[in-house]
Amino acid sequence: MGGAECNKIENTENGSSVDLESSLPYGGGLEIHKVNLPPPKTTLQALRHRLGEVFFPDDPLRQLNDQTCFRRFVLCIQYIFPIFQWGTEYNFQLFKSDLVSGLTIASLAIPQGISYAKLANLPPIIGLYSSFVPPLIYAVLGSSRDLAVGPVSIASLVMGSMLREAVSPDDTAVYIQLAFIATFFAGVFQASLGLFRLGFIVDFLSKPTLIGFMGGSAIIVSLQQLKGLFGITHFTNEMGLIPVLFSVFNNRSEWAWQTILMGFSFLAFLLITRHVSMVKPKFFWVSAAAPLTSVILSTMFVYLLKADKHGIKIIGELHGGLNPPSVNMLRFHGEHLSLVVRTGVVTGILSLTEGIAVGRTFGSMKNYQIDGNKEMMAIGAMNMIGSCASCYVTTGSFSRSAVNYNAGSKTAISNIVLASAVLITLLFLIPLFYYTPNLILSAIIIIAVIGLIDYRAIVKLWKVDKFDFLSCITAFIGVLFVSVQSGLLIAVGISILKIFIHVTRPNTVIMGNIPGTQCYQNISHYREATKVPSFLIIAIESPIYFANSVYLQERLLRWVREEEEQTTKKNLNSLKCVILDLAAVTSIDTSGLETLVELRNKLNKRDLKIVLANPSEEVMEKLYKSQTLKLYGSDAIYMTVGEAVSAMSNHQ
Amino acid sequence: MGGAECNKIENTENGSSVDLESSLPYGGGLEIHKVNLPPPKTTLQALRHRLGEVFFPDDPLRQLNDQTCFRRFVLCIQYIFPIFQWGTEYNFQLFKSDLVSGLTIASLAIPQGISYAKLANLPPIIGLYSSFVPPLIYAVLGSSRDLAVGPVSIASLVMGSMLREAVSPDDTAVYIQLAFIATFFAGVFQASLGLFRLGFIVDFLSKPTLIGFMGGSAIIVSLQQLKGLFGITHFTNEMGLIPVLFSVFNNRSEWAWQTILMGFSFLAFLLITRHVSMVKPKFFWVSAAAPLTSVILSTMFVYLLKADKHGIKIIGELHGGLNPPSVNMLRFHGEHLSLVVRTGVVTGILSLTEGIAVGRTFGSMKNYQIDGNKEMMAIGAMNMIGSCASCYVTTGSFSRSAVNYNAGSKTAISNIVLASAVLITLLFLIPLFYYTPNLILSAIIIIAVIGLIDYRAIVKLWKVDKFDFLSCITAFIGVLFVSVQSGLLIAVGISILKIFIHVTRPNTVIMGNIPGTQCYQNISHYREATKVPSFLIIAIESPIYFANSVYLQERLLRWVREEEEQTTKKNLNSLKCVILDLAAVTSIDTSGLETLVELRNKLNKRDLKIVLANPSEEVMEKLYKSQTLKLYGSDAIYMTVGEAVSAMSNHQ
Repeated sequence: MGGAECNKIENTENGSSVDLESSLPYGGGLEIHKVNLPPPKTTLQALRHRLGEVFFPDDPLRQLNDQTCFRRFVLCIQYIFPIFQWGTEYNFQLFKSDLVSGLTIASLAIPQGISYAKLANLPPIIGLYSSFVPPLIYAVLGSSRDLAVGPVSIASLVMGSMLREAVSPDDTAVYIQLAFIATFFAGVFQASLGLFRLGFIVDFLSKPTLIGFMGGSAIIVSLQQLKGLFGITHFTNEMGLIPVLFSVFNNRSEWAWQTILMGFSFLAFLLITRHVSMVKPKFFWVSAAAPLTSVILSTMFVYLLKADKHGIKIIGELHGGLNPPSVNMLRFHGEHLSLVVRTGVVTGILSLTEGIAVGRTFGSMKNYQIDGNKEMMAIGAMNMIGSCASCYVTTGSFSRSAVNYNAGSKTAISNIVLASAVLITLLFLIPLFYYTPNLILSAIIIIAVIGLIDYRAIVKLWKVDKFDFLSCITAFIGVLFVSVQSGLLIAVGISILKIFIHVTRPNTVIMGNIPGTQCYQNISHYREATKVPSFLIIAIESPIYFANSVYLQERLLRWVREEEEQTTKKNLNSLKCVILDLAAVTSIDTSGLETLVELRNKLNKRDLKIVLANPSEEVMEKLYKSQTLKLYGSDAIYMTVGEAVSAMSNHQ
Repeated sequence: MGGAECNKIENTENGSSVDLESSLPYGGGLEIHKVNLPPPKTTLQALRHRLGEVFFPDDPLRQLNDQTCFRRFVLCIQYIFPIFQWGTEYNFQLFKSDLVSGLTIASLAIPQGISYAKLANLPPIIGLYSSFVPPLIYAVLGSSRDLAVGPVSIASLVMGSMLREAVSPDDTAVYIQLAFIATFFAGVFQASLGLFRLGFIVDFLSKPTLIGFMGGSAIIVSLQQLKGLFGITHFTNEMGLIPVLFSVFNNRSEWAWQTILMGFSFLAFLLITRHVSMVKPKFFWVSAAAPLTSVILSTMFVYLLKADKHGIKIIGELHGGLNPPSVNMLRFHGEHLSLVVRTGVVTGILSLTEGIAVGRTFGSMKNYQIDGNKEMMAIGAMNMIGSCASCYVTTGSFSRSAVNYNAGSKTAISNIVLASAVLITLLFLIPLFYYTPNLILSAIIIIAVIGLIDYRAIVKLWKVDKFDFLSCITAFIGVLFVSVQSGLLIAVGISILKIFIHVTRPNTVIMGNIPGTQCYQNISHYREATKVPSFLIIAIESPIYFANSVYLQERLLRWVREEEEQTTKKNLNSLKCVILDLAAVTSIDTSGLETLVELRNKLNKRDLKIVLANPSEEVMEKLYKSQTLKLYGSDAIYMTVGEAVSAMSNHQ
């Protein structure tokens, strides 16, 4: 350890630095650099920086810098109500585009609204109400230019299946009330996530999980539609794959051939139009207009042939008129409250995930940024206000937004056009839906959800990442065979388990020298990397903290033991020095520091020197504060593995 | 991008490699190395390796390699019953040491056993039963040579406070039954953790959490002892700081001066002996023998002066004899089952943590390794069998093991000596405890737990790691003011929250060149590091996966935006190339891969080139499998940041 006395640990005024005498040349000819201590920060500064990164990573107040008071006020108003931002530059040219796209999505939204309400076991009219108020609110508060707002299939399905646990949908008044309360909670939950900048919670629903969840849900939803398509009256109340199939085949006596024939004809029609639009994206309007066309055709068909007298079930009378207020129905007590809150949270998080993912997708296509937290507040406000105006959970829908985008929408005005079209329907056209057959709604739902089964993505997951495939397939199977909520819960659990496995069992790899360089790499990755005799260089690929410090200590000692066994067996130079490459150790806590101390003690007892290379800012600071640095000594910390090897070979 | 055509992506037979034409010299004079794809592995190989690392990191079957069948059988038996391993070499010399240490810990264990049983609201005799059977079992199954087994304060306290929620301790028969059932569940839980190799779950009780928890519990326990020390009859049933102090001062009328005088005298005596042993470790036996001495002295005092007639409460009659079987009391149904299971799990994990930590501490002092999973099975078996023989939760106790170690114990035989001493006590000496005053038990408990308040460690936590301090202080305050279990739960929650924050909000740092080298380091850490004009080099300090991919994308784009604003403001060379240093990105999932693709698309739209440096084995493999590698192109992946800078400067 000849050179050790040349080095010293300095504690200078403006911080502290472990001076390794930067100009001292060692045997390897490599200049050794001192490893700085980072500039000192007060606790408050560190806390502020940390909180800033956690809660304000996007630095939302940036544009307020260097502005006058009035300008700041205007910017704030524009931040809360983006309509004031783009509204000032709005012109007739833009309006023409928005009018066309608004009318296109309306033709899709009206039949979808009615169908999705049925999916949630709600009266069809609620679906129309929910396509009127929320788009208006989103137009004022939302920051996406392409999002088309309204009820969506997954959230409708989950709400329907969860609320059914408490109250039968036949008990309409109570059921509707629970739905509105759940919607209110969904809105509160969504808005608070945004307000408290906890948007990252949504990220825990990873995409693989969602692919599996949506695939499973799509199958469940489609199976539920067999009731309508086969004209079955006595259908099971359960959602699982097996009871539903059982129910379909057990009630063969109720199958009505007229319903089946008509249903499958329209299903074929819709499938063909969908296929046309998928093959030629230019004809997107074919599939966009198909649902309304089918509704009109089938209604006329029933009306003209009096098919309702021949076993084809129809919607029947709907009460038109504007959304009635429902704020008096929001009660926050009673026996079902806990279930309703849970329903709100689950549907809230699901609809948020869909809305934000859709908004981000189109934002990135048109090259503008979506502020996740702000969107959450907008969607939350939309649902809170919606629940007071007879609307159930709504969000940005993928299918409608895609149509909106393709139809050339420019701003959120297309949502206002959509709302106006729904308004006219509510006021004047409702009676026309009297003869609309139920089977057409089932067909529309099946077509809408069938696109959610993304088997190609599942195959790709298997190829690229087995763990992601596992989350995906668990969600899929869970939804199909257990229940929609449990499937989701299990899949999220598996995603989190993955994090825990990664944290508690981090990789440790043996490094070797890339010949002719000062570069050291994983020997199992780079075949040309060669071990340095007498040295064992181990890279720890994770922060060291309480959850893995015990494991890491044992694993590192096992590497050392195995290396010693190898050298003895092969009669090589015996091991003299262990170098820990801390490049990927981005953080350390007190348990990790203790592990480093114990490792040193244990290796020293075996006459092995232990040396640290490439400590990060935080690690260096903690090593210093905990006195571990003093214990290791200044000749045991190096900036790179190369310098450590060079310095240590010189010592021996 | 002149050199791009020289590079090619090869897919060779024995794996695939992205060949960056290793010998091509670039302008920087730096040789560019190819970034290998790691050798291909089948799914089964990868799974096997992964499961091996997660569940068998210590490679427990290593010693079975290259052995005959018979030898393997012997090794297995020795693995399960370590007594057969060291038993063959046992001799009289070792026994002499074990006899001395066994008798020393017996003199401590007998009064402690009685006291701790009272802490758990159990009859004192159960404490003696629990000091007889478990040490015998541990002697056969345990692998630590220094662990002294028996009831411990924390687990006793928690069991007492949790079971009291269901049944009053005055309802002795039912209460004892619940305690035995909880002990059984604790054993089952402990043994299954070991059996399924889930020992790492114990690591989630981090040391800072435990320091806070034990400090808080020690205060709670000491306060409970005021009942005995002040001779109060009507004492609160609650555990919190405030109700207990309230109860003590509200019942001033019940304070008995004789009790107080005698209690505090013995407390002072015990404190002095403890101090002597702490100052001079050679005199460890002073504090080890003090409890038994106090018991004998105080009992004689009460007997001779008939003090029990003057307000000093005594233990009274105890029924001697061996442990009665209690297997018939284990019932696994009934209304309190869920609470009992929870009690079992909580006391199980707490006693496991203490036992294993103590075992590891002394193992590392004598330089032998403790197999955590094996210890869990031993402690679990001990509690399962114990619960059938009238014992409650036991584990390796810190105070007794320290005495054992200091008294020179050599093997687990000292536990057998301890058990024999307790056996003799149970059979013949029980009547002698009739006149033992309760106050002496209170004094013994206070002295035992007071050492758990480690204020120096708390101060150190504050200095070194604020987040660890937070877990510690939350546990402390939670235990003091809410409840023992909630305090623990909140603190564990905070530890896990820390992991989540680290995972969802990883650091990203800007790198600069260390002048005169090919080395790039964090510019906020190394002041000499200088930015390379036209380049932005960002190191991502965490794996990229679903929980942080959205954040990372936004954060990286913000770095780019800020850098562009800076260069415009200062009129510097405009930004041309972004280099991502992936050295610390030890893993990536499909969400992370998508983020890399989107980042590339977004930066390309701004006419910026993006380049990856230093991808790890797993990242490289996934980049290849997901076709991301093809998209980026072979001129966008480099082995080091230095090579990337050198190659890209040449292109421009």
